[in-house]
Amino acid sequence: MRIAMIGLGRMGGNIAKRLMAHGHEVVVYDRSADAVAQLGEAGGITAGSLQEVVEKLEAPRTLWVMLPAGGPTEQTITELAGMIGAGDTIIDGGNSFYKDDIRRAKTLGEKGVHYVDVGTSGGVWGLERGYCMMIGGPKEAVDRLDPIFDALAPGYGTIPRTKRPEGSDGRAEKGYIHAGPAGAGHFVKMVHNGIEYGLMQAYAEGFDILQNKTSDRVAEDERYDLNLTDVAEVWRRGSVISSWLLDLTASALAENAKLDEYSGKVADSGEGQWTIEAAMEEAVPAHVLTAALFARYRSRSGNTFGEKLLSAMRHGFGGHVEMPQ
Amino acid sequence: MRIAMIGLGRMGGNIAKRLMAHGHEVVVYDRSADAVAQLGEAGGITAGSLQEVVEKLEAPRTLWVMLPAGGPTEQTITELAGMIGAGDTIIDGGNSFYKDDIRRAKTLGEKGVHYVDVGTSGGVWGLERGYCMMIGGPKEAVDRLDPIFDALAPGYGTIPRTKRPEGSDGRAEKGYIHAGPAGAGHFVKMVHNGIEYGLMQAYAEGFDILQNKTSDRVAEDERYDLNLTDVAEVWRRGSVISSWLLDLTASALAENAKLDEYSGKVADSGEGQWTIEAAMEEAVPAHVLTAALFARYRSRSGNTFGEKLLSAMRHGFGGHVEMPQ
Amino acid sequence: MRIAMIGLGRMGGNIAKRLMAHGHEVVVYDRSADAVAQLGEAGGITAGSLQEVVEKLEAPRTLWVMLPAGGPTEQTITELAGMIGAGDTIIDGGNSFYKDDIRRAKTLGEKGVHYVDVGTSGGVWGLERGYCMMIGGPKEAVDRLDPIFDALAPGYGTIPRTKRPEGSDGRAEKGYIHAGPAGAGHFVKMVHNGIEYGLMQAYAEGFDILQNKTSDRVAEDERYDLNLTDVAEVWRRGSVISSWLLDLTASALAENAKLDEYSGKVADSGEGQWTIEAAMEEAVPAHVLTAALFARYRSRSGNTFGEKLLSAMRHGFGGHVEMPQ
Amino acid sequence: MRIAMIGLGRMGGNIAKRLMAHGHEVVVYDRSADAVAQLGEAGGITAGSLQEVVEKLEAPRTLWVMLPAGGPTEQTITELAGMIGAGDTIIDGGNSFYKDDIRRAKTLGEKGVHYVDVGTSGGVWGLERGYCMMIGGPKEAVDRLDPIFDALAPGYGTIPRTKRPEGSDGRAEKGYIHAGPAGAGHFVKMVHNGIEYGLMQAYAEGFDILQNKTSDRVAEDERYDLNLTDVAEVWRRGSVISSWLLDLTASALAENAKLDEYSGKVADSGEGQWTIEAAMEEAVPAHVLTAALFARYRSRSGNTFGEKLLSAMRHGFGGHVEMPQ
Repeated sequence: MRIAMIGLGRMGGNIAKRLMAHGHEVVVYDRSADAVAQLGEAGGITAGSLQEVVEKLEAPRTLWVMLPAGGPTEQTITELAGMIGAGDTIIDGGNSFYKDDIRRAKTLGEKGVHYVDVGTSGGVWGLERGYCMMIGGPKEAVDRLDPIFDALAPGYGTIPRTKRPEGSDGRAEKGYIHAGPAGAGHFVKMVHNGIEYGLMQAYAEGFDILQNKTSDRVAEDERYDLNLTDVAEVWRRGSVISSWLLDLTASALAENAKLDEYSGKVADSGEGQWTIEAAMEEAVPAHVLTAALFARYRSRSGNTFGEKLLSAMRHGFGGHVEMPQ
Repeated sequence: MRIAMIGLGRMGGNIAKRLMAHGHEVVVYDRSADAVAQLGEAGGITAGSLQEVVEKLEAPRTLWVMLPAGGPTEQTITELAGMIGAGDTIIDGGNSFYKDDIRRAKTLGEKGVHYVDVGTSGGVWGLERGYCMMIGGPKEAVDRLDPIFDALAPGYGTIPRTKRPEGSDGRAEKGYIHAGPAGAGHFVKMVHNGIEYGLMQAYAEGFDILQNKTSDRVAEDERYDLNLTDVAEVWRRGSVISSWLLDLTASALAENAKLDEYSGKVADSGEGQWTIEAAMEEAVPAHVLTAALFARYRSRSGNTFGEKLLSAMRHGFGGHVEMPQ
Repeated sequence: MRIAMIGLGRMGGNIAKRLMAHGHEVVVYDRSADAVAQLGEAGGITAGSLQEVVEKLEAPRTLWVMLPAGGPTEQTITELAGMIGAGDTIIDGGNSFYKDDIRRAKTLGEKGVHYVDVGTSGGVWGLERGYCMMIGGPKEAVDRLDPIFDALAPGYGTIPRTKRPEGSDGRAEKGYIHAGPAGAGHFVKMVHNGIEYGLMQAYAEGFDILQNKTSDRVAEDERYDLNLTDVAEVWRRGSVISSWLLDLTASALAENAKLDEYSGKVADSGEGQWTIEAAMEEAVPAHVLTAALFARYRSRSGNTFGEKLLSAMRHGFGGHVEMPQ
Repeated sequence: MRIAMIGLGRMGGNIAKRLMAHGHEVVVYDRSADAVAQLGEAGGITAGSLQEVVEKLEAPRTLWVMLPAGGPTEQTITELAGMIGAGDTIIDGGNSFYKDDIRRAKTLGEKGVHYVDVGTSGGVWGLERGYCMMIGGPKEAVDRLDPIFDALAPGYGTIPRTKRPEGSDGRAEKGYIHAGPAGAGHFVKMVHNGIEYGLMQAYAEGFDILQNKTSDRVAEDERYDLNLTDVAEVWRRGSVISSWLLDLTASALAENAKLDEYSGKVADSGEGQWTIEAAMEEAVPAHVLTAALFARYRSRSGNTFGEKLLSAMRHGFGGHVEMPQ
């Protein structure tokens, strides 16, 4: 089928390519004419404006918006809403906050436009491996777009099949689900990222403990100088903690076991924070996911005011002096 | 080669079987005559006492002790030490604390006996999948026993190969490593389990947040009744958080999405605690691994004295009344 | 001066009484006629409606709203806004979210009405001890109302004076501050409560560790059966951790060292959660304040779905069975 | 009564002085002759060796050892043990690990020597304010030494009395308790310090959140530039979170609200770590106390290996580049 891809960055561009590789027609648009031209060469139907995008589609239209969450996504959807009509569908494939989805779906729904939110995981590997997709929105639209999602998903691959109950939704095994109404796709993706932070931090702490087993705080005959590259590799094989993140860890350590090309100042996108907000709304304790987020905050700062206050208190009651030099 | 397996529980029995399946001769012993007889039928050379075990081996002897950590392992090793001599090797394949390994290796080393500690991961799946092994001990003994480890390890399997540096130790890719001197094997395995706790807790918190999205604390139009079985399944395919633990989660949810056959009272073996102790010895912050351990503690108790004290304080300053009924 | 108190619950009633005891005239109103009558007997000028409240004040009017945060406060302020005019002041003395203050101050400001937010700490003890107040709003209004705040504040009392810099604001030492523009009062109070959760949890964990030193997990000759009542009492005298919360702890334990009249299911008001949200907005790690909040969540639930999932995973990889009975 | 003080550092010297001020005779000894001479001028009976110390006492002798925990304390006690006999008492007033107390008490007990462990809180303020003491050891010895403890303790002071049950031990209100057998004193003191870390971190995080409310991550009309000196001061008066640590905070901020004379690299003594070990032995969750300890670890390091690993993983799955510059 024909679909428009608006936003041709790393994610949008690759998704367009994978769709074309599966026989779909993709109208491509980006603020950057270069990006449009590149996708045009790759087989895309180029458009020079949102208006032209809309004109190159036939009702019911499908427009996949793949832009940074917040302002860019919001503005584009608002503009598009004025150009399309009942039965058309806007897909937000970015990292929007699910409450924004709920709001937008209401507004667009009033004029008959379907709103579908798609949380995608797979990063730069998606073009090749396929994208894991968590989808929210009205059944009618999600069902109509099934060929799109089917093309983007990884499919069964070589992954061992789970013994699933009779009548299970077959899409999950191909790599996409219709999670629920508007926002449900981004909500599930958000929690996915929250978990991702927790998993990453678990590995990080573990490798830190291995790495520091040479510390002179440790009794001399209990120090080990471990080969972390080999440790990561061996855990990939038959151990309980094998995972894709561990595969990436093994690769990174194989390249440079010191990791000294990295600063260790770790960014976080919104999803980690939103996951904690969701946990608090539900009164669910989320010690691990929160600690993982906070570790990233701390990684980006020098010594904090709070830490200085600890020193100040210690000085106050014990005469301890912890000075800069 | 010929080796003795002392302790024929789920782990020891399966290891013996896998060794025999790979052409090794295994002298089998257990306090339970039934267990010995069963392994005998499976091809093992039966022994009725430790003394008989020793007699059925030729120098240099290899004795794999696969017993519960602590008392049983300690006593057996002590007994064996009196029966064997220079050049023989005792393997502790259980979950011993690595500082016990260091101590034992010193004692045994004085009479020329090699001590090798093997941390194994793979659980009940090891017989079929192979065991991931982290090995500590003297190079001489570990090298001599290579055919044993090679037989037990999973091998390359279908796991994608990591691009590894020239001259890397090939054993890691087959599923076992010589981590370092005495204790290093159990130390790496210990941290592995610490990480395992953290990973598990990250998934647990994430699924809790998904599950409670129907809570009446949540605004009515923001509730989702998610199909967690499908969520777990879809994350196995192309997502950043795919892992073996997620595979198990998908299977468990596919069997019973409510998980109501489980109490939720979660045990911990010693490794989680020892990992935190190691972190503290090294002054490494381990927020996530610790929180994962503490969540298990809390899962096993009712309301704590500390929680009652919170209520008492609240009553004290605010007149809040939080009574049993 | 004359002021209206709207909302005569435990907090509003006591504040009205303390104001009257310091010579101020208080117009009292509550939806409950009984509450109004009681304050009338105590010297208040009774009013039967918001309209009557407004009529019994002279411009510039001062109306202290002391109602539950959210709906009740919002509605009352909206209603009052229609009855009063430029130069009048509405005080919100409840536990409003500071972002609501910012919004209200803008709306009210457009018609010249001053909005002052007052975070108060002191609980049921405030009538006697005085209230610690953190105030946000326009300088003009806060200065005009100084006699009110001065009457409510604890004053210097017997608390040792801090050596303060020249030109310090004298109000802080009397127990109130003008923290900043609209919302700043509630923001500071909110963080105060966040800290309060952390302090309480620190004591709770410590006493838990003392209490469980009789546990049969502890080596027999290392068990202590400690008198926690005496421990709390002794820490009040010369120790680094003496505090008002410890005073309350000592009293509670002196009354019943088992605390078994408390369920240990601990409520949280919004401030703890908002404090974490503020921390995340600022990217400030707040491990302790968050853990304290999460401990309260967990105290109110039975075994969670996440905990069951841990058991399910353990069953999956290790054959561990953790069943209800 | 007459007592020996061995170790005349800040703590030992002040304790000796306070004892003399209350009419006790103190034999003073330190490796530093200067320290001995100084205490001699202050009224102490000087001794040039441990042997001389013992000779200047009469049976039953009382020797207070006030040295760094670990080696120095251990050696001194061992030496003294050879010089004294049945009925004599050694007091360890330092920060020993309570399991060392248990061991020592057994050894000394075999020759009839009493061993008393005294955990003291009060820091540099103790000379003036008195010391809060938690005492472990045999009743006979603790009772005999009551005049010593009574002299050192703060006494009732101006602290409001708790309503205590009939027959309560009066010593708690004077500032010392007999907590239990050997080690109980240091155990209670250890948990005291664990709580102290938690309390300090709660304040630190709260003030960090206040301080960063000017961050440009915060929406422009929601930023507050708060006067933290005033905030700390006002919380001392009538608020729920008033405490001695808050008094110290207010003083430190009054001196320099930026705290920029402090590095924020915060040391920890052993007690925090031991408290977590005790929690784990008892299976008590201690999220807050642990997080407080870990925050100190992190304050002392630059970016960790684990943080670099996070960056490496992010690079692996998302092509994120987090480079040093």
